Amino acid sequence: MKAAIVGFTGYTGLELVRLIHLHPVLEIGTLHSHSVQENSVNVYPHLQQLVNQRIYPFDPLQIMQENELVFFATPAGISKDLVSPFVEQDFPVMDLSGDLRLKEASVYQQWYQQTPAADRLLHAATYALPEFQTSHGNLMANPGCYATAAILAAAPLVRRKWLAGIPIFDGKSGLSGAGKKLSDTSHFVTISENMQTYKLNQHQHIPEIVQQFQQWDPELTAIQFSTSLIPVNRGIMMTLYVPVAPERTAEDIYQRYQEDYQEQPFIRLQPLGKLPELRQVTGTNFCDIGLVLNPMTHIVTVIAVIDNLVKGAAGQAIQNVNKWAGLEETAGLRQIPWYP
Amino acid sequence: MKAAIVGFTGYTGLELVRLIHLHPVLEIGTLHSHSVQENSVNVYPHLQQLVNQRIYPFDPLQIMQENELVFFATPAGISKDLVSPFVEQDFPVMDLSGDLRLKEASVYQQWYQQTPAADRLLHAATYALPEFQTSHGNLMANPGCYATAAILAAAPLVRRKWLAGIPIFDGKSGLSGAGKKLSDTSHFVTISENMQTYKLNQHQHIPEIVQQFQQWDPELTAIQFSTSLIPVNRGIMMTLYVPVAPERTAEDIYQRYQEDYQEQPFIRLQPLGKLPELRQVTGTNFCDIGLVLNPMTHIVTVIAVIDNLVKGAAGQAIQNVNKWAGLEETAGLRQIPWYP
Amino acid sequence: MKAAIVGFTGYTGLELVRLIHLHPVLEIGTLHSHSVQENSVNVYPHLQQLVNQRIYPFDPLQIMQENELVFFATPAGISKDLVSPFVEQDFPVMDLSGDLRLKEASVYQQWYQQTPAADRLLHAATYALPEFQTSHGNLMANPGCYATAAILAAAPLVRRKWLAGIPIFDGKSGLSGAGKKLSDTSHFVTISENMQTYKLNQHQHIPEIVQQFQQWDPELTAIQFSTSLIPVNRGIMMTLYVPVAPERTAEDIYQRYQEDYQEQPFIRLQPLGKLPELRQVTGTNFCDIGLVLNPMTHIVTVIAVIDNLVKGAAGQAIQNVNKWAGLEETAGLRQIPWYP
Amino acid sequence: MKAAIVGFTGYTGLELVRLIHLHPVLEIGTLHSHSVQENSVNVYPHLQQLVNQRIYPFDPLQIMQENELVFFATPAGISKDLVSPFVEQDFPVMDLSGDLRLKEASVYQQWYQQTPAADRLLHAATYALPEFQTSHGNLMANPGCYATAAILAAAPLVRRKWLAGIPIFDGKSGLSGAGKKLSDTSHFVTISENMQTYKLNQHQHIPEIVQQFQQWDPELTAIQFSTSLIPVNRGIMMTLYVPVAPERTAEDIYQRYQEDYQEQPFIRLQPLGKLPELRQVTGTNFCDIGLVLNPMTHIVTVIAVIDNLVKGAAGQAIQNVNKWAGLEETAGLRQIPWYP
Repeated sequence: MKAAIVGFTGYTGLELVRLIHLHPVLEIGTLHSHSVQENSVNVYPHLQQLVNQRIYPFDPLQIMQENELVFFATPAGISKDLVSPFVEQDFPVMDLSGDLRLKEASVYQQWYQQTPAADRLLHAATYALPEFQTSHGNLMANPGCYATAAILAAAPLVRRKWLAGIPIFDGKSGLSGAGKKLSDTSHFVTISENMQTYKLNQHQHIPEIVQQFQQWDPELTAIQFSTSLIPVNRGIMMTLYVPVAPERTAEDIYQRYQEDYQEQPFIRLQPLGKLPELRQVTGTNFCDIGLVLNPMTHIVTVIAVIDNLVKGAAGQAIQNVNKWAGLEETAGLRQIPWYP
Repeated sequence: MKAAIVGFTGYTGLELVRLIHLHPVLEIGTLHSHSVQENSVNVYPHLQQLVNQRIYPFDPLQIMQENELVFFATPAGISKDLVSPFVEQDFPVMDLSGDLRLKEASVYQQWYQQTPAADRLLHAATYALPEFQTSHGNLMANPGCYATAAILAAAPLVRRKWLAGIPIFDGKSGLSGAGKKLSDTSHFVTISENMQTYKLNQHQHIPEIVQQFQQWDPELTAIQFSTSLIPVNRGIMMTLYVPVAPERTAEDIYQRYQEDYQEQPFIRLQPLGKLPELRQVTGTNFCDIGLVLNPMTHIVTVIAVIDNLVKGAAGQAIQNVNKWAGLEETAGLRQIPWYP
Repeated sequence: MKAAIVGFTGYTGLELVRLIHLHPVLEIGTLHSHSVQENSVNVYPHLQQLVNQRIYPFDPLQIMQENELVFFATPAGISKDLVSPFVEQDFPVMDLSGDLRLKEASVYQQWYQQTPAADRLLHAATYALPEFQTSHGNLMANPGCYATAAILAAAPLVRRKWLAGIPIFDGKSGLSGAGKKLSDTSHFVTISENMQTYKLNQHQHIPEIVQQFQQWDPELTAIQFSTSLIPVNRGIMMTLYVPVAPERTAEDIYQRYQEDYQEQPFIRLQPLGKLPELRQVTGTNFCDIGLVLNPMTHIVTVIAVIDNLVKGAAGQAIQNVNKWAGLEETAGLRQIPWYP
Repeated sequence: MKAAIVGFTGYTGLELVRLIHLHPVLEIGTLHSHSVQENSVNVYPHLQQLVNQRIYPFDPLQIMQENELVFFATPAGISKDLVSPFVEQDFPVMDLSGDLRLKEASVYQQWYQQTPAADRLLHAATYALPEFQTSHGNLMANPGCYATAAILAAAPLVRRKWLAGIPIFDGKSGLSGAGKKLSDTSHFVTISENMQTYKLNQHQHIPEIVQQFQQWDPELTAIQFSTSLIPVNRGIMMTLYVPVAPERTAEDIYQRYQEDYQEQPFIRLQPLGKLPELRQVTGTNFCDIGLVLNPMTHIVTVIAVIDNLVKGAAGQAIQNVNKWAGLEETAGLRQIPWYP
């Protein structure tokens, strides 16, 4: 099953290339980039002798003729203007950007400071969170990296309306999450031996988290949400603090996580009381989750770790495509994490 | 004013050496270590031509004869057994370990899993938090690194009883905080490209924070407290989440921080809404604090950053000694942070 | 084809597990460790749901009954005492340590400061450098990590006796090369923001390099060899400086590298004048090589980069096993490097 | 003694600010930048409450009226066009860029690819290498960072014409050496967990090294010179390989280094056979040098380490100004290195 990648030169696009190379069914059809038009090897020496394809400018007709599916790995604000020809032909689209995740155009406008996609696109798109979304149409919006970690950390509690207060999310991310675009923030000397909190309560993944939570508990309207950069290349550690009713025991809570996740091939619930470290999922599609209840404060601490480029982007997109295509959900995604 | 350093080979002891070298009044008298007895240069090439002193075994008489003051930069569980001869002579002691910080012996026993110091020592010792402690006796207990950041982040709210819920502290520390002792946790390959949360709600700095808070608000009995290691050498970023009453405005809260800190030479309150980054205090005794109120959740996020070896240890100890000795509080401590 | 791993808890052993998991023919039979005897998941959370095998103590009979092959991923000085029962039965052994690489027992004694293996073992063992060694017996000694990079960087020149002076090797390695054993050198705080040169002209990989070179040019008796640690987890960059006769052109030299390496599936010769960076091979079995001739000095600079745990250890061992077993040389080893 | 800093927003300019703040005689007069015109604190939070000066555009008259000296901490190609008004008035100038280091305009043109400074400026300028340059005029060119390390590593051998072959320099630098300008090379994700060799035999510091060497040995016309980036913020490790005549012993060679450096306050020669590590000089003006002779190859390995922003830039500039002003050479420069 051939797939095109639009915007393949970013970290997410390159990660799609790496993962599709390991996939038993998917294969790379055509690569597209507006910034580079040449042999990929000249641009990325790590791809030598492995990926020798030419890079083409964006061309919907070519993509539909030579592929069965297209991945958009473009920055926010691009795919919303490019997907129409595919949607018109009902050609399968997996969008990894934030353009099609929010149902309300005005919310997109507010958080992304850009003109939103047309309403018919927003409504046609599925928010493709594979652990909780059963039917995927031909227009899939892959969740954001912070959002994936936050939703998976909180879901068993939110779904049961067990939150006894506002959930507080303290997220830490590696620099690949900040993308390939040069910025002061991503300059080596800026962030090495440093840690920076940014977009406090203003990160654009907040509305997709709230949108998902409201499907489970319409009364939940606000969250507290911090995002920080730590000097690593990959990985998100999402720490959730949430009060629960005094009668809830740690075992009660843990059992709800087991119920929701024991059948999920990419959620590895840690033994009760054991917290995952960032690197135990690196390079893979796993989301490892651990939790601890503080009996004195009745606040649960939940930690979820993911690789932001895999479960937070390219890997989850492939997991979604696997489900959509009726393949085994884990096809091509069962590697052992990188250690070290 | 000559000072001895006991346990000078650890990171804190070496930082005392570095800072005393910059001090206009203090100077190094004698250096003591149980693990090394030779010329310091042979052990630490960075000290060549700067510090050429011999290293002696611990000897209270020698220390009192050749110095006017002694710093204990030993791990927990050592100084409690060594300070008695000094206390008997009322010889000035600055203890940087946790042995003399807690007033209740049983609390020490519970959190440190060691036999506590004698009660008379615990009661004689001052918990020397220079921003809020006015009189220092001759037996000073320097606050812990996480505790310093946590207390300074929360103090203006706790002192006014403005907490409308349990304060949640999410602390991140560089590896020098884990000390020089070899451990799997501190192995380069373990922590590089990684982040680990440890001792969740069980860190031994929790009781000294609660002890201090209870002086201001006896009803505050529990906190939520996370500690994580991030792959940097130095620095603590302490993030505090705390609910406040709906009528409090950001400006109200900010003004309380200004009241408490505007006269404090080592607290640099950031403009309202601006958060400090970890590295803007590295190498120095500053604690930089920023805060943001989320109007939707009525939860304040406060971030305090310190260099764990300076404001979190050696620098604060010197600040305390400056106050104790009647010197200018900032003597020897006004360097520009390392950048980068 | 089931394989046992002895010493699986080290970085090399774990990397064998990761790579065998990706292999179409090899699979993990039994895991052995003297330090751990339990379920692997309890020890290594990254292996959860992927590798659930029990860990056994070393037991030659069990190994031979339940496997077709055994990998020794033990530190120097172990396998020499453990391989005899396998050799007696002609059971296939791949030794990743330095114990069986040197033909002269006295040389081993001198460089490793340990009693050497018995002569019959040393003579039975093949130095399994897959690019130049055609026949592999049942007792294979996998080359060292620095040695692999150094030999591959210099081979085309040494084989043609084109060295016009002593070759100088300046090698830089990530910390996983220093192993899992705790040491001051590998403590995070020691090596982060640092670089250290060690064992100058005394590294134990020197004699295997010279042994291999002398097979090609018996007059070559000495090399200059530096090894340094840089603050990364994985990777070796080997920089070779070697004078050539003034009549040699860059093109001449480059052509010799092409002749030797164009058929080699894991050597990626860079275009003339282009040098590889460390990370373009991370996670994979590639050795990328680039070279530049300085026309003013007639000194060639050659840079070879490998992942020390893959081409420098586990990956090369599997490449050798592939050749030995008559499988395709690249079986299970054609992944795309990690980027980033 | 007030000093102006032109180009203060770069890493070198900021390091001048940090070091002048520690200096007993020098003080910051006026700060100048073409890119920023406001209060420095708004731009650099680490300077809060320490440096509150306004930032001015470049203005030679203002500089000469309000200062006794001007530092140029500008990138290559700027100061050559700005220094004339100062030179005309014989106002003291310390230029930290490469614009005035080379005596031959054509050499500058070739290596910097820019129009050179006027010949009269090039001839008026002193190449201010404080260990070997005795008289400093009012127009000083501070040596480059790599050049400082390379010249100091080789000087005792070059001055005695003891090189028995072409010297090979393998230099490794932290990222602050690549400056504050954004580039793919300096992006965190590019260089973390990576190492890159660049400008092989083409670095613009090569001609100033050769120019200096030729003053000592006119027959020395070429060197081999590699420069690589390693993932640290600060520091250069320069490794020199040079053949010597077979009759030279290690002690002979070591004694020559002692002769040249024992009176030098910022050169710390390590005991014979001991090599310095990168970090033992961080934050300071020291250049630590160690050497080892390989008796089998007659090649000496010399390692010199410096902090590229201090001894490689701002610190050496202040050392030069100290000499020029008749102050103690070490004034303001005797701090203990940062450890860790």
